[in-house]
Amino acid sequence: MDITTLIGIMVSFGLVFISIMVGGDGTWFINYPSIMIVLGGTMGATLLAYPLSEVLGVFKVAKNVFLHRSQMPADLIPLMSGFAKKARQEGILSFESQLKEIKDPFLARGIQMAIDGMESSSIEEVMSIEIEYLEMRHRLGSEIFSTMGGFAPAIGMLGTIIGLVQMLMQMEDPSQIGAPMAVALLTTFYGTLLANLLFLPVAGKLNTRSKQEVLVKQMILEGVISIQSGDNHRVVEQKLKAFIAPKARMTADAQPVKA
Amino acid sequence: MDITTLIGIMVSFGLVFISIMVGGDGTWFINYPSIMIVLGGTMGATLLAYPLSEVLGVFKVAKNVFLHRSQMPADLIPLMSGFAKKARQEGILSFESQLKEIKDPFLARGIQMAIDGMESSSIEEVMSIEIEYLEMRHRLGSEIFSTMGGFAPAIGMLGTIIGLVQMLMQMEDPSQIGAPMAVALLTTFYGTLLANLLFLPVAGKLNTRSKQEVLVKQMILEGVISIQSGDNHRVVEQKLKAFIAPKARMTADAQPVKA
Amino acid sequence: MDITTLIGIMVSFGLVFISIMVGGDGTWFINYPSIMIVLGGTMGATLLAYPLSEVLGVFKVAKNVFLHRSQMPADLIPLMSGFAKKARQEGILSFESQLKEIKDPFLARGIQMAIDGMESSSIEEVMSIEIEYLEMRHRLGSEIFSTMGGFAPAIGMLGTIIGLVQMLMQMEDPSQIGAPMAVALLTTFYGTLLANLLFLPVAGKLNTRSKQEVLVKQMILEGVISIQSGDNHRVVEQKLKAFIAPKARMTADAQPVKA
Amino acid sequence: MDITTLIGIMVSFGLVFISIMVGGDGTWFINYPSIMIVLGGTMGATLLAYPLSEVLGVFKVAKNVFLHRSQMPADLIPLMSGFAKKARQEGILSFESQLKEIKDPFLARGIQMAIDGMESSSIEEVMSIEIEYLEMRHRLGSEIFSTMGGFAPAIGMLGTIIGLVQMLMQMEDPSQIGAPMAVALLTTFYGTLLANLLFLPVAGKLNTRSKQEVLVKQMILEGVISIQSGDNHRVVEQKLKAFIAPKARMTADAQPVKA
Amino acid sequence: MDITTLIGIMVSFGLVFISIMVGGDGTWFINYPSIMIVLGGTMGATLLAYPLSEVLGVFKVAKNVFLHRSQMPADLIPLMSGFAKKARQEGILSFESQLKEIKDPFLARGIQMAIDGMESSSIEEVMSIEIEYLEMRHRLGSEIFSTMGGFAPAIGMLGTIIGLVQMLMQMEDPSQIGAPMAVALLTTFYGTLLANLLFLPVAGKLNTRSKQEVLVKQMILEGVISIQSGDNHRVVEQKLKAFIAPKARMTADAQPVKA
Repeated sequence: MDITTLIGIMVSFGLVFISIMVGGDGTWFINYPSIMIVLGGTMGATLLAYPLSEVLGVFKVAKNVFLHRSQMPADLIPLMSGFAKKARQEGILSFESQLKEIKDPFLARGIQMAIDGMESSSIEEVMSIEIEYLEMRHRLGSEIFSTMGGFAPAIGMLGTIIGLVQMLMQMEDPSQIGAPMAVALLTTFYGTLLANLLFLPVAGKLNTRSKQEVLVKQMILEGVISIQSGDNHRVVEQKLKAFIAPKARMTADAQPVKA
Repeated sequence: MDITTLIGIMVSFGLVFISIMVGGDGTWFINYPSIMIVLGGTMGATLLAYPLSEVLGVFKVAKNVFLHRSQMPADLIPLMSGFAKKARQEGILSFESQLKEIKDPFLARGIQMAIDGMESSSIEEVMSIEIEYLEMRHRLGSEIFSTMGGFAPAIGMLGTIIGLVQMLMQMEDPSQIGAPMAVALLTTFYGTLLANLLFLPVAGKLNTRSKQEVLVKQMILEGVISIQSGDNHRVVEQKLKAFIAPKARMTADAQPVKA
Repeated sequence: MDITTLIGIMVSFGLVFISIMVGGDGTWFINYPSIMIVLGGTMGATLLAYPLSEVLGVFKVAKNVFLHRSQMPADLIPLMSGFAKKARQEGILSFESQLKEIKDPFLARGIQMAIDGMESSSIEEVMSIEIEYLEMRHRLGSEIFSTMGGFAPAIGMLGTIIGLVQMLMQMEDPSQIGAPMAVALLTTFYGTLLANLLFLPVAGKLNTRSKQEVLVKQMILEGVISIQSGDNHRVVEQKLKAFIAPKARMTADAQPVKA
Repeated sequence: MDITTLIGIMVSFGLVFISIMVGGDGTWFINYPSIMIVLGGTMGATLLAYPLSEVLGVFKVAKNVFLHRSQMPADLIPLMSGFAKKARQEGILSFESQLKEIKDPFLARGIQMAIDGMESSSIEEVMSIEIEYLEMRHRLGSEIFSTMGGFAPAIGMLGTIIGLVQMLMQMEDPSQIGAPMAVALLTTFYGTLLANLLFLPVAGKLNTRSKQEVLVKQMILEGVISIQSGDNHRVVEQKLKAFIAPKARMTADAQPVKA
Repeated sequence: MDITTLIGIMVSFGLVFISIMVGGDGTWFINYPSIMIVLGGTMGATLLAYPLSEVLGVFKVAKNVFLHRSQMPADLIPLMSGFAKKARQEGILSFESQLKEIKDPFLARGIQMAIDGMESSSIEEVMSIEIEYLEMRHRLGSEIFSTMGGFAPAIGMLGTIIGLVQMLMQMEDPSQIGAPMAVALLTTFYGTLLANLLFLPVAGKLNTRSKQEVLVKQMILEGVISIQSGDNHRVVEQKLKAFIAPKARMTADAQPVKA
């Protein structure tokens, strides 16, 4: 599992937990109806806004994002430059036997299209459309979480207003408002907690991860087109290095070529 | 009816209802003047901002969106690829007799233009304009609902200020402010409720639905152009698969070709 | 006058008026210094941000928008398609005598340029620039109103802070704060009222109206270019129908051709 | 000096001043530490975000914007159309002697490049880059002021929190909190005042002024390219009129040609 | 070290420090659990949203930004124009020996590609991609800081709600709420302080610095392409001057050519 994520969750939730336990009775913050209204209201509003399949899908995507590491862009460079060398020496058709060894399915599809003799502009069009709509699907995932991050505090506030109205309606002795006021505040507490320590950071994570994946795919697209046009492997390397940070380029150089 | 929508509405409104009934007297939350000022003010501001026909139209669109399912993009692929095969074997004119069987009017118009011998670039222009302005009309619908979602809480707050001013003006005994303060808060309650559990989620739904419809239409456009240019049916399939998620592609393969 | 606008204003302001009269003494809400500071402060900030001529101009535009109806896009289609027929039969120069009968000055200028023999690309450039800068001027109008809609509540809050400071400074008996607190809240009331029931809806209206006008002009541009290229009147019809909703297309068909 | 600006400042600050003087003792609102923390904190945060030279530069730009009037776009049309006539009659080289009389340096540079025989596409590139980066510098200026408009209320609130903490820490008699609470509110007062009556309107002004200047420069670019291509002076007029409002075009016609 | 930055930090933090010391006991504002929850919660949420390497990387970038000055765009003009002169006189290959003296690695890579005989369009593509992805990496850095600037106040508010609930739950004598209320406000104080005097200004700084670096790189790209095409050194100068403010152009003229 992604260690940073674990640290992130433990640090933020841990500190909230500690500050709750230190300042008084921890059970003050456990109120099932309040939890229910915030979580349920947020999910309800989200299910009204997005189809069920998308909402369920996004949780699976989110899980994967936290469990698996994404491909390093720098690792692509020696791979693609090796391909370019091979293509110039043995011809693009020589990849046919090797096609199954290529793990990245997007790269494999690109090479397949080149082998099939599709025109360069058609390959670029198909691969660009694929990247564009991949981005759109990723953006939808990130959007669902930030939508939840927007609804949660609003519904928390709604719960607090309900609590305040109920408290004010039956208030007889102003000095006794402490406990009901505290309970009314709990929905705002849950809403703020969920939004800022869970929904919004996860939306950010999906966004970051999407950008990284799109970068890798852009490099593959550039590389496949370059290989098909018969570019020299130094030129392919040059082009792909432009995508990554100067410091990361060293890493790319240091690595042995592997297919 | 779209089951997710029903679940979404029942969960969120149900939980609000329960938390209102459990915490005291449910009639505390029913205040007709407050409901009237929030709903009426929001509608008034919306009618000032948008023409009546658009506002009425958007409610009809919203109803349809919740009652009908949208077309699955994956279903298009075997259909279009079958068309491509037929076009290469029997010529584009062979579609003339079949035209009435095509249910999607956008696809039918595209094929009709190809039969009429319009140039590829003209067909693309007409169909692109249609997609662009369809998106614009959809965006307007989503915009009207998010406008209402913006006005509702603001007008709720306006009602609360009116209530507070009235309460403060006739306040004699500070210990008696409970009930009037609660009543003043009700407009904020209604505004927040309507915005977050109704208007904003519906705006989101219209948006999501629009993206799906535009995706289907983009695929039809790509397919019609590809068919007219006489592309091989494998190439058409390749191009259209780029629009959808890898997982959905399997579904597309599994389905039999149907016209 | 645009009936929707009238309804919108009457409903929203009427409801606010009723809820003020019902809940107590209506004069509580009339406070000239408060009205003055909110209105004057908002105008002052707006005049600092925009030139006087623009601010005055926008009020005139706003008045027109509410008094006049805009052209229906669907009405353009039979007109342009009739023009296309005539141009193919009698040549583009045959429009010379008819030019004065064309009411829309943008269309007249387009036809004039075609008669003058300007190149298609030059006509498109001139008309596109005109549309682009028309949009820019419209956007400025809408922007001025939404700027006022942003300043009004902020200046209302400023007035409330001034009132609170004055109240707190001379507070002797905490039980007597009712009336001054109510008065302090009035500027927030005015600011919220003006922003949400007047400035922001009018900004929205200008925006909606602008999109409609631009749509009509885009259709005229497309039509003039198409007519000049000698397109068949069925093609012109096809192209223009792509701009409007399928339902509105029927209307376009039903109407007799009129020049 | 720009009279609108003067009116704007006098109206808004005047009204705030009056409402302060009328409601009590004016000195209640003068608190040097509060002014210092809001102004200083805002400047500190701004200097952290932008280089000193830019911040100082923007104040100079702001001063100029308020002191000088910008060029009227309509005035350009007879000038450019006169140039076009001359260029067709006497050749582009005939401008060489006149070059020093052209007051606008951007126009002079454009004509100079035409005289130098630079290609049309190169001239367009150089002038477009100049416009683009001019816009970027203008946007920076506007951004600095809106950044200050964002920091001022936030730092005002920070000051109020500091004041509240200090008040609460030494509170013994709750009935005596009036004065310290009022003082705590003053930083919020200053922050809101500066943001809404000064920083944000000035940011808006810089923005409006920039759009006007860019419009003039776009017209010059269009005109120079058109003159160099040897366009008829009626065509140049036609093209430039497309940039301005129909009403302003009359003004352009009414004016005598001046170089 | 960048003197403006130092001034910015000293002024803003100094004023906050003074206003804390003057108004009472400075230790009131030191509360380790409150600092911990705000800082830790913000870092936790940020680590959930971004990979650890990026978060650490951004702090290093931020440090460099404050320690080093960026290159002045005006300094580039005489350098590039000198290069253009040399390229026309001695040929592009004459740069081979000089390549190691070029300090800017982006410029060196551009010249290297020109020496290698890569096509103009390929050089432009590689350099444009490099600029685009450099901007993307910079934007990520700025984004991380503005994300922290968004989380900090929200988590400060979360801490305040926790404190309020604990206070209300054990409240017996309403007149004793002063101190616990003050402590509850401290997390909001820290969150607002960190966001507005640290995170958001640093995000702004990274943004400003990025724009400057991108400007320099755009000028280098334009210059290298221009030099490779054999443009006259006056034309190169002309083109590059279009990027900078008219006033800065004088500086560019005044400086002696240096390689």
